[in-house]
Amino acid sequence: MLEQDFENIPDLRFNIDVLIEEPSHIAARLRLDCSPKGSFLGLPVNGRRVSFSEHLFYRFRGRKIVQIWSVTDKAAIEAQLAQ
Amino acid sequence: MLEQDFENIPDLRFNIDVLIEEPSHIAARLRLDCSPKGSFLGLPVNGRRVSFSEHLFYRFRGRKIVQIWSVTDKAAIEAQLAQ
Repeated sequence: MLEQDFENIPDLRFNIDVLIEEPSHIAARLRLDCSPKGSFLGLPVNGRRVSFSEHLFYRFRGRKIVQIWSVTDKAAIEAQLAQ
Repeated sequence: MLEQDFENIPDLRFNIDVLIEEPSHIAARLRLDCSPKGSFLGLPVNGRRVSFSEHLFYRFRGRKIVQIWSVTDKAAIEAQLAQ
């Protein structure tokens, strides 16, 4: 998600809940708390403030990130929109 | 997900794509390929075979897992059901 345009989420902020490191990889559990402007992950968030996690894996070659795998907790956002 | 009842997914199998270890934590990116019997993550999978990732963080105290955080790629399953 972080590779997407920050313009869509003007108030994007996150905390790092867990960070695990090896020489060639980093894994992070982020906690996001933000108000995406329009549709987000195909959901009609439309500026509503939502809180959710994102689990990321980064693979490094030297000091460069060469691969990112991300899974965002869409179900958590759906649950908040349903309230 | 792995803590749920395997009965619902008789053919549950997964590959470990990435595994990152520290003394107190493990992070894993799993690739699952299975046919959940009924509803799965609120989606009408109903025995269809789907492939998706799950990103897990485990926290250990000694040799015991004391916490698990899991995010499953629900969007990937939705995309396959829409095909």
